[in-house]
Amino acid sequence: MTVTPSSPYSEQPGRIMSREMAEQPDVLRRILDSGAPRIRRTAEEVAAKHPRFVLLTARGTSDHAALYAKYLLEVRLGLPCGLTSMSTTTAYAAKPDLRDVLVITVSQSGGSPDLVASTQAAREAGAVTLAVTNNPDSPLAAVSEHHIDILAGPEKALPATKTYTASLLALYLFVEGLRGSDGAQAGALPGLAADLLARHDEIRTLAARYRFAERMVITSRGYGYPTAKEAALKLMETSYIPALAYSGADLLHGPLAMVDNISPVIAVVTDGRGGEALQPVLDRLRGRGADLVVIGPKAQVEQASAGFVLPTEDVAEELQPILEIIPLQLLAYEVTIARGQDPDAPRALAKVTETR
Amino acid sequence: MTVTPSSPYSEQPGRIMSREMAEQPDVLRRILDSGAPRIRRTAEEVAAKHPRFVLLTARGTSDHAALYAKYLLEVRLGLPCGLTSMSTTTAYAAKPDLRDVLVITVSQSGGSPDLVASTQAAREAGAVTLAVTNNPDSPLAAVSEHHIDILAGPEKALPATKTYTASLLALYLFVEGLRGSDGAQAGALPGLAADLLARHDEIRTLAARYRFAERMVITSRGYGYPTAKEAALKLMETSYIPALAYSGADLLHGPLAMVDNISPVIAVVTDGRGGEALQPVLDRLRGRGADLVVIGPKAQVEQASAGFVLPTEDVAEELQPILEIIPLQLLAYEVTIARGQDPDAPRALAKVTETR
Repeated sequence: MTVTPSSPYSEQPGRIMSREMAEQPDVLRRILDSGAPRIRRTAEEVAAKHPRFVLLTARGTSDHAALYAKYLLEVRLGLPCGLTSMSTTTAYAAKPDLRDVLVITVSQSGGSPDLVASTQAAREAGAVTLAVTNNPDSPLAAVSEHHIDILAGPEKALPATKTYTASLLALYLFVEGLRGSDGAQAGALPGLAADLLARHDEIRTLAARYRFAERMVITSRGYGYPTAKEAALKLMETSYIPALAYSGADLLHGPLAMVDNISPVIAVVTDGRGGEALQPVLDRLRGRGADLVVIGPKAQVEQASAGFVLPTEDVAEELQPILEIIPLQLLAYEVTIARGQDPDAPRALAKVTETR
Repeated sequence: MTVTPSSPYSEQPGRIMSREMAEQPDVLRRILDSGAPRIRRTAEEVAAKHPRFVLLTARGTSDHAALYAKYLLEVRLGLPCGLTSMSTTTAYAAKPDLRDVLVITVSQSGGSPDLVASTQAAREAGAVTLAVTNNPDSPLAAVSEHHIDILAGPEKALPATKTYTASLLALYLFVEGLRGSDGAQAGALPGLAADLLARHDEIRTLAARYRFAERMVITSRGYGYPTAKEAALKLMETSYIPALAYSGADLLHGPLAMVDNISPVIAVVTDGRGGEALQPVLDRLRGRGADLVVIGPKAQVEQASAGFVLPTEDVAEELQPILEIIPLQLLAYEVTIARGQDPDAPRALAKVTETR
């Protein structure tokens, strides 16, 4: 899956990313139809070991999927969670006591040596290990006691899109499985994702707003916070616009100094408690005359400078992140095309990053 | 401590921040001389409860101090740690099972209502609670079972400086106390901090480099990573330059696309395993012709475009973060002065942020 310099990306910029974004409804359906029973069984096996803490390990886009899982595990299961600092194992050879700990490692390729090493070390330290990857034959899947296949098919564009939404859904079904639920309310997602993709023209209009932006701030709270982080990464790795993601609460603790009417803000407003907790931040931003674009429910979009309405009425708050990111993937794509760059192959990046 | 708009900040821009940075050697000495015995006792009381997992809660600058503590706890004690997503308690009312969990809340003011609420909830859920604050009379200190006073004295500039290094040293002594050590090797820090502050002129020269920068990337690995995050926050909240902090490993996973010879990079090279793990990232950046400024050991600075040499020979790796941040605080200050702004009072910020 490593992309060589001879790949003919430049023939039609964004062709590969565009195709992979469009596959998302099919991938989500495949997980619900073919993946769910196996994920449920894995969840039952893990639940039988009664983990008391969860550590999540990932990098880049997968780290945002891990953060989504952290919210699910804490809110829906009351399991204390942490995101690991991988270098404590790989660089400092720390030997933590991981009895009663579930270690979840999320990686599209399952090939990064540091993830493999830290997962192996966790297993030796007594943890229950679960790998969530797009490759059941990967080294990471091999060293983990349990494995969930996100069934997204090969991903060739450098910016990850379908593997992100696939990881979210797989993790959702896993956490629901831990609770003894079948996660049936996810059934509407493939159709809703297709509806969002069909509104590509709306995003093209929105993208014009950011063509000459020198920086952006993306904010959210609660379940939408991983979306904000993933959207910032997508924008940076395709368009190279410095996009800073902050939880709404953190934004008020410092970086707000940077926001004025020349720093556009995108707010991901998840309909539910996360969106409610973001409300004071939105009021503050509006009070400062910020250029505020909202991705969220209609009533919120109407109060903003511009936005993209999400069909949140019939979607549980914890499932909205799987939809929220889609218009933001499209936005990163369109802004990059508008700036004359190729979203498929950002400079300097390889698909599988071999950090050690 | 909330600063009202009538404060006479503009009379001499940066006067307050400058004074507070200069107090750091005294503050560090005060902690070593007067604070250490009490911190040691607190550590003994906490150790007697045998926590198996640690959750750290903080925001802004204090969050970077918490991240430093996470490395210490994982590497030196083998205790699995997580940074909390506060909104899971405050917005979603999650009820985690926190028996055997030590919850450490770090807050300069000890006054932010969401930190007080989440600490109270943690205590009710069975956690051992420890607050690390600059105010023993604060609501946070009151709701926590244990409290460590960082003894930094009133901090009035909006960008936190002396309370950051004070929090790091207090947390270092606490973790050493958990290990049954007196942390005596920290004794050299006040003198070394004074030496760094005396080299203010070197930083003024370095600052000229960033006067017109439109964005910056700051990277590190291991113990230096909290320094990179804190330096980015300092630069953003004083100069408003978008400064993006990445662990070296994460940088290779996406944001590297943004780094070219117009995006300057500051690398915090901690002398030890963190610095070694950063080496491939430094090589990659040099290979791309990045403008690379190194804060770290002499040999590393000599290979970079420019830098600031830290006296790392006689300082244990885990203590270097307490020194590394000082030249970067000075840099944020000088860049801001060079841009004609006032580091004491960034627009839009209040000293105590009342997120709920």
